[in-house]
Amino acid sequence: MKINKNYLNLSDNYLFSEIATRVKKYSAENPDKRIIRLGIGDVTKPIAEPVLNTLTQSVNEMGKAETFRGYAPDKGYEFLRNVISESDYRSRGCDIEPDEIFVSDGAKSDCGNIQEIFDKENTVAVTDPVYPVYADTNIMAGRRIIYMPCTAENGFVPDLPGERADIIYLCFPNNPTGAVITKAELQKFVDYARKNDSVIIYDAAYEAYITEQNIPHSIYECEGAKEVAIELHSFSKNAGFTGLRLGYAVVPKALVREGVSLNKLWARRHATKYNGAPYIIQRAGEAVYSPEGAAAVKKQVREYMENARFIRDSLAGMNYRVYGGVNAPYIWLKTPEGLTSWEFFDLLLNKANVVGTPGSGFGKCGEGYFRLTAFGDPTDTKEAMERFRRL
Amino acid sequence: MKINKNYLNLSDNYLFSEIATRVKKYSAENPDKRIIRLGIGDVTKPIAEPVLNTLTQSVNEMGKAETFRGYAPDKGYEFLRNVISESDYRSRGCDIEPDEIFVSDGAKSDCGNIQEIFDKENTVAVTDPVYPVYADTNIMAGRRIIYMPCTAENGFVPDLPGERADIIYLCFPNNPTGAVITKAELQKFVDYARKNDSVIIYDAAYEAYITEQNIPHSIYECEGAKEVAIELHSFSKNAGFTGLRLGYAVVPKALVREGVSLNKLWARRHATKYNGAPYIIQRAGEAVYSPEGAAAVKKQVREYMENARFIRDSLAGMNYRVYGGVNAPYIWLKTPEGLTSWEFFDLLLNKANVVGTPGSGFGKCGEGYFRLTAFGDPTDTKEAMERFRRL
Repeated sequence: MKINKNYLNLSDNYLFSEIATRVKKYSAENPDKRIIRLGIGDVTKPIAEPVLNTLTQSVNEMGKAETFRGYAPDKGYEFLRNVISESDYRSRGCDIEPDEIFVSDGAKSDCGNIQEIFDKENTVAVTDPVYPVYADTNIMAGRRIIYMPCTAENGFVPDLPGERADIIYLCFPNNPTGAVITKAELQKFVDYARKNDSVIIYDAAYEAYITEQNIPHSIYECEGAKEVAIELHSFSKNAGFTGLRLGYAVVPKALVREGVSLNKLWARRHATKYNGAPYIIQRAGEAVYSPEGAAAVKKQVREYMENARFIRDSLAGMNYRVYGGVNAPYIWLKTPEGLTSWEFFDLLLNKANVVGTPGSGFGKCGEGYFRLTAFGDPTDTKEAMERFRRL
Repeated sequence: MKINKNYLNLSDNYLFSEIATRVKKYSAENPDKRIIRLGIGDVTKPIAEPVLNTLTQSVNEMGKAETFRGYAPDKGYEFLRNVISESDYRSRGCDIEPDEIFVSDGAKSDCGNIQEIFDKENTVAVTDPVYPVYADTNIMAGRRIIYMPCTAENGFVPDLPGERADIIYLCFPNNPTGAVITKAELQKFVDYARKNDSVIIYDAAYEAYITEQNIPHSIYECEGAKEVAIELHSFSKNAGFTGLRLGYAVVPKALVREGVSLNKLWARRHATKYNGAPYIIQRAGEAVYSPEGAAAVKKQVREYMENARFIRDSLAGMNYRVYGGVNAPYIWLKTPEGLTSWEFFDLLLNKANVVGTPGSGFGKCGEGYFRLTAFGDPTDTKEAMERFRRL
């Protein structure tokens, strides 16, 4: 009996578990201190009323034999896949059909699982800094990883991989840097993938936070992307579903490698290892696209982005170098006085009782940076900036 | 870019997808026929009232900032893990602690994902017939599989593996045969695993259907099992959560291989690729253990088992050879007149408009058998038996 030794190549703790541990320890030792959490990127606003109403109605359906629903269809209910196809794609000129959409319990699961349909021998390119899940799940599978540095110099948008990459993970608007990619820059990656037979995993979890023009909301806005790209979406950040769990993956039928349809491979994976997102959550997801639901979740996003603007302006006023926060709920700041990211984390936790995320937790190029999120309560966010000022 | 070619070693369709396809086709061609589904093993009774009330209350919590819950703790909420530890284990004399319990979105996910923490080179033993997920997920990972035949001769309880097996999947009460294993027989597997350094994956999804004495409800009732066994549980069949999605895995801290704690490996997997079951569903799960909730779900189980008894007796009266249905919601019957399982499936669909599951879909030893489930509506179940009589 042998264990999967690739796991031993991982760092000891998943980043956010390590943060939770340190905060828990500090809280236990300092029960009187009120901690403000701008770390993990969890939302704080309650589920919007039109969405909650639908959720409640569908819970009622589960209590009557006539309307009770058991196992969901493999790919998710058609009512949800249809509205995603229409609202997230066709309305933007992207021809994505409902049967190219796979509903899941969240983008983190899809991020983690999508690599299973690829061979172990592929080389994987990820940005540095990077959302740890892309890298860790490929390390677990034993794949070789190459890093694409994202620095202040390149505006946190990576250059094309320096060596051949079979699979490329991109996330824009970016977690953790808050950077965005223009359509022209993204087209370069699509063209690279077409030329090199690569596959791009495009994580669009923060798409709803885009405020500026000419920033693509979907990779399928780029020419030829359907032949090279899988796109992942979340309901966590645009609609506050971090505790409800809903997401979807788009695997176009035009995406074929070695004569095999990746849409079919992913369908087989989905049907074999997963039993669908709960009916009641899929109904809540559908409500996010209703006129009332869409208006309510947009309002929440605008309010979070008001936090982002406030953090950005406040820190800039204190002479921090700040990035992001314009098309993304993340503010990426340079740590002061040459502190490492974890030194700044501990300083901030101990002196200001504010929790952020150390940039080095996202990769080597994140060292000396720090991530704050705009998901806090507005009063807390203002209080956090006051505490920064007194540091 | 290479795909995972292990997928090409799978049969083309996941069993239940194939059944769904055939039924859909028949329905489209015969819109006037009312089909009775005793196939997929989906429940039909609505969520029990005490559980539904809790679910509704927790949905309300999600609508207020003070009680809103975002990301769940990695392993699941303590309120649920505590009650599982107490009610499913300590009350039975099994010392399983809350931090050995990992809450998930269902046993199917856990069945599919658990193999990831093991090396590819391990040999995997599964029963034949077998719930397809155990075998398919290991084929996807490229592991070698050996089969342990379960036949009428051995009472559908397998002998110990004929050659060395590193990982052994067992499911009792069994899907699809409805067979059970005695504590003494299960102890032999535990002893085998201890001697051979193997790990047993014990799927206890149907534990709530045990009606007879001396049948183990958990593998941890066997001596030394904590050092060799992982146990998987579902809320689907005991509490009707097929459409709500909740389950849990037990990975004891005493389970160590090559000096590494499997509890820690699974914790790393859970934290990296999964973001927890929804808070509202975990609260509903907790309610399953309340006095009112437990009484209500037990009543549902008894009603389903009344169907099982009815099917069993009816078919026996028609001179079918029938198995199971006493400690499990599945009736396993020998097909008549030497028909293959799929021939009988088509006959039953076309002539009686009843859907069951072909035994051969569960493996070679399932050929010539057929599975019916007790999850139907009682009136439908009686009607189905009438239709059998007229075949």
